[in-house]
Amino acid sequence: MGEKMLPRAERRRRTEGRILDAARKLFAEVGYERATIRAIARSAEVDPALVMQYFGSKQELFQQAVRVVDADAATGGDDLVERLLATLGVKLGEMPRSSLAMMRSMLTHPEAAASARRTLGAQIDRLAESIPGEDARLRAALAMTVMVGVTVSHRLLELDELREAPPEEIARLLRPGLRALTGPDVS
Amino acid sequence: MGEKMLPRAERRRRTEGRILDAARKLFAEVGYERATIRAIARSAEVDPALVMQYFGSKQELFQQAVRVVDADAATGGDDLVERLLATLGVKLGEMPRSSLAMMRSMLTHPEAAASARRTLGAQIDRLAESIPGEDARLRAALAMTVMVGVTVSHRLLELDELREAPPEEIARLLRPGLRALTGPDVS
Repeated sequence: MGEKMLPRAERRRRTEGRILDAARKLFAEVGYERATIRAIARSAEVDPALVMQYFGSKQELFQQAVRVVDADAATGGDDLVERLLATLGVKLGEMPRSSLAMMRSMLTHPEAAASARRTLGAQIDRLAESIPGEDARLRAALAMTVMVGVTVSHRLLELDELREAPPEEIARLLRPGLRALTGPDVS
Repeated sequence: MGEKMLPRAERRRRTEGRILDAARKLFAEVGYERATIRAIARSAEVDPALVMQYFGSKQELFQQAVRVVDADAATGGDDLVERLLATLGVKLGEMPRSSLAMMRSMLTHPEAAASARRTLGAQIDRLAESIPGEDARLRAALAMTVMVGVTVSHRLLELDELREAPPEEIARLLRPGLRALTGPDVS
């Protein structure tokens, strides 16, 4: 059935979805500042005015585009470190565009920074619950910063050494450090 | 002696220095895109036209502002990991503005990204020389990504857990992981 035959609400829903996909892709590639409404509209094959009509502002479009479905990889029966490393494998391979878009802009765009702090904060909270000792929150935060460092270096800065390495190899090398951070005291 | 009494070349040198200081500060705080020539000129107390006259373009001003004096903390007699952790202490406490300016923009500005890759690449090269085994470069790259993760999370994202922790405590918790990454095989 052609788009023209669809009910108006359904057509609008599909167009919004296409705009959001294009926005996620561009925000992830070049960041908030450089992703123009014009370029997003061109990529979604709609008029720029329609983007503004549907989303009101670039800021609002960004917020909707980076809304991260929290996969909650830190629950389940497995070992804590193995779950973290499994998340990392996913991130290196096929991290959701919305997360990449948020990370790309988190150092220069206030809303992306706030969103990154919220997301990391929730992950730190969950992780800290499974870590023994008084410094559980600091340890959890450091474990997350290791994940942030690897993801930023691999997916956004695109360091050759990381891109050429199999995710299992990266996981193998990070395992002892993450075990030390999340296990009994290390001093 | 008042500025007016100085030779012209010396006056110009001082004004350029003031503009570069203001540029570093603003680039470090808000990133390349949001740091306008107008705001940099205001902070340096000069006319925006003078900034353009001296530096030609925002791009050129950025390049000169983020030129990092490579402190080369990874040479010297001490243990490899302790040297890395000492650098981290410096970074958390009083990282040079030029480095912060580069890191702030490295995910969204192509020149800052290239500059970050060059700087990290040189550090990975040096580190890899001291690491045994075939996967020395990957291990060195992962050690650097840990440093990147902590610096980004502490200085740019400003995670509470990290800002409230003494640098020695952060170093203590990261030590086992960095030892595993840079020492004999860990599998």
